[in-house]
Amino acid sequence: MPAPTLISLDAMGGDHGPPVVVGGIRDYTRRHGGEGVRFLLHGDEQAIVAELAKHNLTSDICDIRHTATKVASDEKPATAMRRGKGTSLWNAIEAVKSGEAGAVVSAGNTGALMAISKLILRMSAPGLERPAIVASWPTARGVTAVLDVGANIESDAEQLVEFAIMGEAFHTAVHGVEKPTIGLLNVGSEDMKGHEEVREAARILREGGLGLNYHGFVEGDDIAKGTVDVVVTDGFTGNIALKTAEGVARFISTLLREALTSSLQAKIGAAIAMPALKAMGQKIDPSAINGGPLLGLNGIVVKSHGGADAKGFGNAIRIAVDLARSDYMQTVGANLGRLGDVMHAPSTQSESVS
Amino acid sequence: MPAPTLISLDAMGGDHGPPVVVGGIRDYTRRHGGEGVRFLLHGDEQAIVAELAKHNLTSDICDIRHTATKVASDEKPATAMRRGKGTSLWNAIEAVKSGEAGAVVSAGNTGALMAISKLILRMSAPGLERPAIVASWPTARGVTAVLDVGANIESDAEQLVEFAIMGEAFHTAVHGVEKPTIGLLNVGSEDMKGHEEVREAARILREGGLGLNYHGFVEGDDIAKGTVDVVVTDGFTGNIALKTAEGVARFISTLLREALTSSLQAKIGAAIAMPALKAMGQKIDPSAINGGPLLGLNGIVVKSHGGADAKGFGNAIRIAVDLARSDYMQTVGANLGRLGDVMHAPSTQSESVS
Repeated sequence: MPAPTLISLDAMGGDHGPPVVVGGIRDYTRRHGGEGVRFLLHGDEQAIVAELAKHNLTSDICDIRHTATKVASDEKPATAMRRGKGTSLWNAIEAVKSGEAGAVVSAGNTGALMAISKLILRMSAPGLERPAIVASWPTARGVTAVLDVGANIESDAEQLVEFAIMGEAFHTAVHGVEKPTIGLLNVGSEDMKGHEEVREAARILREGGLGLNYHGFVEGDDIAKGTVDVVVTDGFTGNIALKTAEGVARFISTLLREALTSSLQAKIGAAIAMPALKAMGQKIDPSAINGGPLLGLNGIVVKSHGGADAKGFGNAIRIAVDLARSDYMQTVGANLGRLGDVMHAPSTQSESVS
Repeated sequence: MPAPTLISLDAMGGDHGPPVVVGGIRDYTRRHGGEGVRFLLHGDEQAIVAELAKHNLTSDICDIRHTATKVASDEKPATAMRRGKGTSLWNAIEAVKSGEAGAVVSAGNTGALMAISKLILRMSAPGLERPAIVASWPTARGVTAVLDVGANIESDAEQLVEFAIMGEAFHTAVHGVEKPTIGLLNVGSEDMKGHEEVREAARILREGGLGLNYHGFVEGDDIAKGTVDVVVTDGFTGNIALKTAEGVARFISTLLREALTSSLQAKIGAAIAMPALKAMGQKIDPSAINGGPLLGLNGIVVKSHGGADAKGFGNAIRIAVDLARSDYMQTVGANLGRLGDVMHAPSTQSESVS
């Protein structure tokens, strides 16, 4: 029997801390079974013990590592970094660095998680200044992975290709799609469209050598259409596209809720249509897609939304388990090496930007 | 009595041509009255006459200028430009250049409209390579103007500030908001976030001298929230944000339609709630916000969506009339001049990029 996959958890992160983190473990085991997985919870022992008891989770599946402090949600990343060892966030990541855990999940402060992950684990993608974040979008054809939605503000062609490499391996590991199609986000589908970085990245992806299933340029509306499995863009555009989409979805949901409660007649109609509306809501349930891995690090780090509920945190755990059990790290490592050859810059292959 | 405002129309543009263009005139006059407005229709005389007759529109309000040819929707802008005078698109724009018309509306080929407008009218904004396009978004608080959603791919700080100047004057002229608030689209609200162009544009807007009501940075989800009246961004990000939002809205609409027709029970509920759902639909009706002006030209050009219906085209006409009757051109001219001083580059004040 193989050793169980150990997932390190920042039990104090997010808006809710231990109740959602432990609830997430319960949700994960209920959906996927607890076989072959163990959890290492970093945080306030007393609070964690109380939550584990509520959910009948025992030391068979959960270990606790007490930490007296945590990183606040509004704490500056630099401050959190300077505090060093001892916060639940820091110690949770360190369990990956030491090789004890196969992945870490945190719903904590994104900036601090990025900075401390980078400090402890170091970047594996030579072109990246900081980790890329993947968002999973519900689409007409399933789920599309969009990256970077984090903050690699100015992405050159090499970075965009690195995103493609990591996005492909992520999609295969987590969504089970072999050879997912990859599109580069642009303002048109013609070859001469867009700025130089995008056109140069397209050239590298088109000419192959990386074995990726490159589809071509895609436009903003192709994301929700599910035209491709993986949409690659710079961290500025990706972040704005993601937040714009979230804003639009929230706006329409609010209008719908208001409409369906605007009169007695509307309420009656809504009550009758409720099973269908609920089924629809599940297709765009944020909990079902929660969990954005930070890619480009020497180790697997998954960010849960700070406001996620137990179901959402459970999904972030699922993504961490899938990545930890897959050959994601090896595939990415091999392809990043190949990219070094393609870029005719072999000296950058083993360079670690820190 | 002042001379009527003359609006030049490309009667052959868009997916539907004269039926929608003439239907748009009828829609406009029905909503806003025909007082003080006349239309100059460029295109196939016979087809236009037939449509005018259907809608009981007479030569009191509509003049026809026959053209034998039109620009195809898939025609390359360069080809359309080389054909020169004689297409309905070209001649419609020329009526603005000659001073005969106060504005032109076309639902035709966007690339050709941009290129020919620039060729005939020339840019008035010295920093712009090509016209900026404004999109009007329905939001929780009304309508927000977002620009550029066109294709000024790499926008420097000066261009972003020009967008702010033009967006402000547009919003005042068309949405009647005095001193609209202006936000710069970014990946966070802190001063140090985002790339250099955005931070430099923020500095210029913050330091004032242009008399704009600058709010600060906004994020993607602030668009649908209606946090500010005018959202300024580069043409790459703006185009992707707009199309992403359209894609998400369409996806959710499709899911809703599918849900409400998925069973007999759902259909009954939907039928009962229909008045409320229709009222909701009107709040996000694309026809109600159709019409994106091309800004930065020496003249007013409004692009209607190619697939717009008569109501949508009527709204594009309304925007053209509002702009033509306002002091939009003067306000923008004065502020662009002031920007020249602010940028410490007085030599560019009268420079015309063509």
